[in-house]
Amino acid sequence: MMNCDDDALLKFDIPEIIYGRGALSGLGHCAERVGGEKIFLVTDPGIIAAGWVDQALKHLKQEGLHCVVYDNVVSNPRDFQIEQGAQHYAKTGCDVIVAVGGGSPIDTAKGIAVMATNYGSIKEYVGCNLVSHPIPPLVCVPTTAGTGADVSQFAVVLDSQKKMKQCILSRAIMADISIIDPIVLQTKPRELIAATGMDTLTHAIEAYVSSLSWPMTDPHAVHAIELVNEHLIMAVENKHLPALEGMAVACLEAGIAFSNAILGAVHALAHPLGGLYDLHHGLVNSVMLPVVVRQNLSHAEDKFARMARALGVETRGMHPSEAAAHVPERIEALINALGLPKRLSELGVSREDIPAMAQMAQEDLCMLTNPCIYATSDIEAMYHEVW
Amino acid sequence: MMNCDDDALLKFDIPEIIYGRGALSGLGHCAERVGGEKIFLVTDPGIIAAGWVDQALKHLKQEGLHCVVYDNVVSNPRDFQIEQGAQHYAKTGCDVIVAVGGGSPIDTAKGIAVMATNYGSIKEYVGCNLVSHPIPPLVCVPTTAGTGADVSQFAVVLDSQKKMKQCILSRAIMADISIIDPIVLQTKPRELIAATGMDTLTHAIEAYVSSLSWPMTDPHAVHAIELVNEHLIMAVENKHLPALEGMAVACLEAGIAFSNAILGAVHALAHPLGGLYDLHHGLVNSVMLPVVVRQNLSHAEDKFARMARALGVETRGMHPSEAAAHVPERIEALINALGLPKRLSELGVSREDIPAMAQMAQEDLCMLTNPCIYATSDIEAMYHEVW
Repeated sequence: MMNCDDDALLKFDIPEIIYGRGALSGLGHCAERVGGEKIFLVTDPGIIAAGWVDQALKHLKQEGLHCVVYDNVVSNPRDFQIEQGAQHYAKTGCDVIVAVGGGSPIDTAKGIAVMATNYGSIKEYVGCNLVSHPIPPLVCVPTTAGTGADVSQFAVVLDSQKKMKQCILSRAIMADISIIDPIVLQTKPRELIAATGMDTLTHAIEAYVSSLSWPMTDPHAVHAIELVNEHLIMAVENKHLPALEGMAVACLEAGIAFSNAILGAVHALAHPLGGLYDLHHGLVNSVMLPVVVRQNLSHAEDKFARMARALGVETRGMHPSEAAAHVPERIEALINALGLPKRLSELGVSREDIPAMAQMAQEDLCMLTNPCIYATSDIEAMYHEVW
Repeated sequence: MMNCDDDALLKFDIPEIIYGRGALSGLGHCAERVGGEKIFLVTDPGIIAAGWVDQALKHLKQEGLHCVVYDNVVSNPRDFQIEQGAQHYAKTGCDVIVAVGGGSPIDTAKGIAVMATNYGSIKEYVGCNLVSHPIPPLVCVPTTAGTGADVSQFAVVLDSQKKMKQCILSRAIMADISIIDPIVLQTKPRELIAATGMDTLTHAIEAYVSSLSWPMTDPHAVHAIELVNEHLIMAVENKHLPALEGMAVACLEAGIAFSNAILGAVHALAHPLGGLYDLHHGLVNSVMLPVVVRQNLSHAEDKFARMARALGVETRGMHPSEAAAHVPERIEALINALGLPKRLSELGVSREDIPAMAQMAQEDLCMLTNPCIYATSDIEAMYHEVW
């Protein structure tokens, strides 16, 4: 197993953040400030259709910057797609990368950035701190309030041969600037707000109980949980700006927490589902979250008790174990209220794949920081429980 | 009056943070990582005497880096001293600046860094975002757990003609990396732990009620207040490592909060005292804090009520105004427990200077973000109240 905690010191590192209604209008200035003359803008067709790429281009061109748009991005980006993008980048002579979109465009942009200054294939950088050369300047405009990829040191790439989602985790792949404009979230479909909201909650919960959590990451995680509890249902129901703003900050806080404290077993168990079935990352996190939390409860009781309060449970006078037990119940109530699927069988997952998925989950980088160690048979049992 | 909120967007930006017992041993690697071959190490004679500069040099030299030590640093660094340092820097051909020390060496290092790549005199950069050229890479090793200068976008310089402490506030002067090693705090004298601890508390309180505070800065401020409440008295009394670690994180959290939310009237009223009398910044903040908090209470009642909880007051069932009123009382109790001075007359301040100090305070950059506006006569009254 790889060890991310290479020198026993704790690290805390985030991009510069610019936040607010209309923040997108600052994109040109930011891209110029990090040294841009010719911008490689990575996005996907959905974001183009929603009109945000036109807006982004307008602001970039107002600063006199040349732009190349690259939209060959799919959900769960594959290794060969990233390498195709990198070849295209190299031909254009661009000097700054801008990502406008959710986790897939941002992770694709990070992958392209790695290939721009490092050698070999993108798969060689899967693991901890293997990216040795600094990437080109990278500015992100997240459009989903879910992934936190805009502030994290993670990129997830799908190994197309093994059908495995794998993590590149390196300080070198962090963006320079993240521009968070809640206005952009208004075009997001309700189902996506719900699924990415559960992704945010998963980031916060896993970061909070991670074995690498520390006093600098904990308040970010707790704050994210409080904000999800306060805003997610409203954001899905009415898409009003204050609720979307709450979720934008929740996503940011959860991203800061997990980028620096890393994740846990929910992500380890979700990655094989994304890899084998191309399922939405937020949806599979949501399905796996309650069962993993129940298994983790006794290994971080006090933190789960604190989470119960953050989720609106009145825990006064309760023993920590009693308070902690409310957390999976609250999560299930939230999933019910959002109308999200609760079983893997609903998502078309085949029971026969469970042993192989459990093996992949066991080897996932995110398993290293879960508050307890699971036997592969335990992981199989968790998959079966929610099948 | 200058306006720091130049584009109505909210910003959040901090250096990369490396934290832990023994973190100083990573200094050489960090200095090399930001491009260093020849290091300009800014410090003061007290830090040299405590042995930390020898340690720092050992770690820098282990990475094959050449070093020049510059220790011509005094408390409340003057404009001409910074310019002397800059001239020395220019002659040495150094490429990275490392600051080892408290607020004075770090602010001196920032001033030298500004002069290294920008023109004219250091006083031309007093104000908001006037530093246009990027500074040389800067790595800080804070030794006081008080100022937060290692993570902030501030540098304070004393105008030697006007005898005024003035703020340079610019994203450009933020360090690249802050290395926080709580072991280093063990040689700190008790009086300094107390005074810099009160500086930290002041940062957190002012940032929390600042007109530029936002949901990303608030949790840092509250966390800092909780940590000061939990650890400061113990840190002063027994200098045990867990309490010093609590204060190191408190300082970091308060620094992150105030760098991004800015400060308030306590700092505005404290700066003239530092400028005219060369008093320790933490001490004068401590004297001014209760009186300013009492005046600010009604302008941020809910936040002061939340602060009361962070300071250990059981506020359940209390009206916010009642809870808020406990804050100045708790601060006074803390000052009593620490044995710090409570009156300006104890510090040798002359009553006749109050009108001039009130005028300077009114013009201080930090006054812009106080939750309410004061007439100059109100400021005079506050000085008189604690004279």
